[in-house]
Amino acid sequence: MNFLEQKIVEDGVIKEGNILKVDNFLNHQIDVDIIRQIAYELKRRFRGKQVNKILTIEASGIAIATVLADLYDVPVVFAKKSQTANSTDDKYMAQAYSFTHKRMNNVFVSRPYLTAADKVLIVDDFLADGQAANALIDLVHQAGGEVVGIGIAIEKGQQQGGRLLREAGYQLESIAILQSMDYATQTIVFKEQPTRLQSCNAKQQAR
Amino acid sequence: MNFLEQKIVEDGVIKEGNILKVDNFLNHQIDVDIIRQIAYELKRRFRGKQVNKILTIEASGIAIATVLADLYDVPVVFAKKSQTANSTDDKYMAQAYSFTHKRMNNVFVSRPYLTAADKVLIVDDFLADGQAANALIDLVHQAGGEVVGIGIAIEKGQQQGGRLLREAGYQLESIAILQSMDYATQTIVFKEQPTRLQSCNAKQQAR
Repeated sequence: MNFLEQKIVEDGVIKEGNILKVDNFLNHQIDVDIIRQIAYELKRRFRGKQVNKILTIEASGIAIATVLADLYDVPVVFAKKSQTANSTDDKYMAQAYSFTHKRMNNVFVSRPYLTAADKVLIVDDFLADGQAANALIDLVHQAGGEVVGIGIAIEKGQQQGGRLLREAGYQLESIAILQSMDYATQTIVFKEQPTRLQSCNAKQQAR
Repeated sequence: MNFLEQKIVEDGVIKEGNILKVDNFLNHQIDVDIIRQIAYELKRRFRGKQVNKILTIEASGIAIATVLADLYDVPVVFAKKSQTANSTDDKYMAQAYSFTHKRMNNVFVSRPYLTAADKVLIVDDFLADGQAANALIDLVHQAGGEVVGIGIAIEKGQQQGGRLLREAGYQLESIAILQSMDYATQTIVFKEQPTRLQSCNAKQQAR
């Protein structure tokens, strides 16, 4: 188990309907130590990629995005949500259905903050059906920019968002991927991911 | 002028109705270098104060709060807004009028994330009439906790929020305080604040 899977096991709660509640460290109260580790791990996974902007969506993606932007020393842009906003010339707009709030949100970014020169790393705390991620991709493409990759803290692997994004060719990196959960027994299964060897000399020792 | 006043002069825009637009570095696109400087300056101004939690309100306060929490190595809690949320046993709730959205918002924090043991530094990007700050103070007090202080990036000094909070005895630190603005001439006046001498030896040299 990696640090985030370990944290989920220690502090997460499975609620009825198989909803994972992690609002004591990720999306209401925020454990900055975990956020910092998430940011470092995402930067490592996108090593070698040129990134000049981090894009997220309000509100709970902002903490990870800010720390990651600090590591890259690039700006963060957070897309705003509105139920009522009208399409205007001064913003890019896309739509995303919120399963949490059971409504369609307009998601927008003011035009000056996404451009054709942008190489954008999209970041969010959760990925489920991919509604938010796809809206953010749409905004980057409307501006003519490039989506370098998508970095997620927790992917709900039982839902289709991750599969569809990978099939579409995006580099999607999720630090913890939920494979299954059971409310009755409060057990969780994570999808296996490659584990990085911890020894600095691991490569030499393998020779 | 300090670094934030300088940044406002360089990148801010005064819109009709004397609204200061800083969404290219503070509350839509975020310049992490400025956020980092704001966090360091707030920590300096609250030097000697014991802080075990940073409290802010979604969404644009989260970036500053996260970097500041990283400096203090304490958790951030961000209060959530809702138009519809009902008062329930599992959360503290207060009300704040949003001048931006012209509506009353319920502002809430889940009970486990504010306690009587908490020494809370409240942080936000803007202070105008103090609606959000007062709602956050209310939440801390409902939990029996202590408000150590209030740290703000930009205070609208023409509005009454700052004066009332200071009169109520709170240590309120705002890095830039707007005294007046003029749309026609695009000019701005900041309230004078004590300036820290830059020389490490300033005290010795003064003897």
